[in-house]
Amino acid sequence: MQKISYISKIRVRFNETDPLGIVWHGNYITYFEDGREAFGRVHGISYLDIKKNGFATPIVKSSCEHKLPLKYGDIATIETTFVDSPAAKMNFTYKIFNPEGKLVCTGETVQVFTDNKGELCLTIPKFFAAWKQKVGINFP
Amino acid sequence: MQKISYISKIRVRFNETDPLGIVWHGNYITYFEDGREAFGRVHGISYLDIKKNGFATPIVKSSCEHKLPLKYGDIATIETTFVDSPAAKMNFTYKIFNPEGKLVCTGETVQVFTDNKGELCLTIPKFFAAWKQKVGINFP
Amino acid sequence: MQKISYISKIRVRFNETDPLGIVWHGNYITYFEDGREAFGRVHGISYLDIKKNGFATPIVKSSCEHKLPLKYGDIATIETTFVDSPAAKMNFTYKIFNPEGKLVCTGETVQVFTDNKGELCLTIPKFFAAWKQKVGINFP
Amino acid sequence: MQKISYISKIRVRFNETDPLGIVWHGNYITYFEDGREAFGRVHGISYLDIKKNGFATPIVKSSCEHKLPLKYGDIATIETTFVDSPAAKMNFTYKIFNPEGKLVCTGETVQVFTDNKGELCLTIPKFFAAWKQKVGINFP
Repeated sequence: MQKISYISKIRVRFNETDPLGIVWHGNYITYFEDGREAFGRVHGISYLDIKKNGFATPIVKSSCEHKLPLKYGDIATIETTFVDSPAAKMNFTYKIFNPEGKLVCTGETVQVFTDNKGELCLTIPKFFAAWKQKVGINFP
Repeated sequence: MQKISYISKIRVRFNETDPLGIVWHGNYITYFEDGREAFGRVHGISYLDIKKNGFATPIVKSSCEHKLPLKYGDIATIETTFVDSPAAKMNFTYKIFNPEGKLVCTGETVQVFTDNKGELCLTIPKFFAAWKQKVGINFP
Repeated sequence: MQKISYISKIRVRFNETDPLGIVWHGNYITYFEDGREAFGRVHGISYLDIKKNGFATPIVKSSCEHKLPLKYGDIATIETTFVDSPAAKMNFTYKIFNPEGKLVCTGETVQVFTDNKGELCLTIPKFFAAWKQKVGINFP
Repeated sequence: MQKISYISKIRVRFNETDPLGIVWHGNYITYFEDGREAFGRVHGISYLDIKKNGFATPIVKSSCEHKLPLKYGDIATIETTFVDSPAAKMNFTYKIFNPEGKLVCTGETVQVFTDNKGELCLTIPKFFAAWKQKVGINFP
C-alpha cells in the first residue's frame, strides 16, 4: 500500500470555537478538507482539477478521533496522507497537531467518483490512473 | 409603502455560540435567511419559487444591529417584513426577539434579480409583479 | 445492550448546501448534534442538563457514512439512538432519512465525561447512573 | 478622523460556497473578522490582547454591500481599516478584492467594550487609550 503525504497549516477562527472555548468537533471535518485540498493543489488532484476532468468525488465516509482540543488562535498542522487502493476510490487519512506538536486528532475520509451525469464510477477513471502514475504510485 | 410580515421561530444551535457563550454575531445573517425563507414558503416567494421562475435573487446588502445576546438553546422569534418598493429589488427587514420577548437585533437585506444567464434585471420580473398583486400590494 | 431512540426533524438550510446543490458532508455532524440534543431535551440528558450537574461531555469520536444526498429545503428525519455500555461514556448512533423515507446516512458519536475542573471521569458519574435507572436501563 | 489599515488574505473554502457556486453572503462577516483579527495581531489589539486586558468587544453593528461574487478557491484580499472616533467604540471598515483586484464588497463593524462583569464601558478603557497613543492616533 503506497502513500503520499502533505503538510499544511490552518489558523483556528473565533467562530469555530464553542462555549467551552475549544474548536467545535464538527469543524475538524472542515480542517480535513483544508488539508485534502492543500494536498490536491500541490499534487494536481484538487476539487477543481477533478472537476476539469469531468468528475466529482463525493465523500461517502468520514471519521474523526479526538485526543486534545484546539483553541482560538492556534495555528495547527495538518498531515494529509493519500492512501492508495485498487478500488475506484480516494482514501485520505489525517493527523492534526497543535502548536506544541502534540496530536490533536486523527481521521479519515473515503471518496467515490461520479461522472458528469452524477453516475457512480465502478472502475478507476483514466485521469485518476494517469495521476497515480505521474505521482509514482505503480501497482506491480 | 406597503408591508407584509411573517413570524417564525428558530432554536439556537450549540455550534452557533462562541466562547462568550452567546450566538456569534455573523450567525444572525443565517437567522435572517431562515426568517426570509419561512416568509417565502408561506407567501410563495421562497428561493425555490423564484428559481422555478428562472431567476435568482442575490443579496447585495445586509446589515444587523445587536441589542442583546441569544444563548445556546434559546428559541428565538423572527419577525420578517417584506417592504415594498418600485425598484426591481426585494427588501426585507427583520426583528429577532429572545424567549422573554425582548428585542435581540434588527436588520435588513436587499436582493436584486438576476435571470438564468446571470444578468441583472433592471425592471421588475413579471412573476414578481404578479406575486405582488396576488398578495395585495398594488401601486396607485 | 439496551437502547432508547428518539425521532426528530430538521430542515436543510441554504447555506448548508454546496456548489453540487447538496448538503456539504461536514454538516451532517451538526444534524447528529441536533438529533442528540432533541433526544436529550426529551430524556433529560441534554448539554444543559449535563452542565447543571457539573459535567461536560466532549465528543471523542464521530463518524458518518453517506448513502444519498440531501438538498436545499429537504425536511429530514433523524433517528437518534442511545446505546448503553458499562463504560463512563455516552454512545449514540444516528440514521437520517430523506423526505421519501430513504436512508441518507448513518453515523455514531462517542462522548466522555469531564468534571468541572476539566478532568476525565474514569467512572460513571452518579447523575448519569441515576439517569440510566430513571429511563429504565438496568444492568443485571 | 485618523485611520490605520492592514492588508491580509483569505482563501475561499469549498463549504463557504453555495449552490450558485459563489460565497454565501453571510460568510463575508467571517472574512471581516479574519481581516480584523489579522489587523489586531499586527497592531496588538486582537481578541486575545483585549481579553488579556480584562475586556471583551462585542459587535453591535455590522453591514456588508456586495458588488461581485467570490468563488471556490479564490484568494481574496481584505483591507481592514481602523477608523478612530472619540467614543468608547472600535469602528472598522473593510474592502474585499478578488484575485483580479476588483472590489467584491465593502463593509463595516462597530464594537463596544464590556468589562469582566459584562458591563458596558461608557468611557474609553485605559488600555485602549494607551493603544491609540502607541499606534500614533492623537487627538488635538
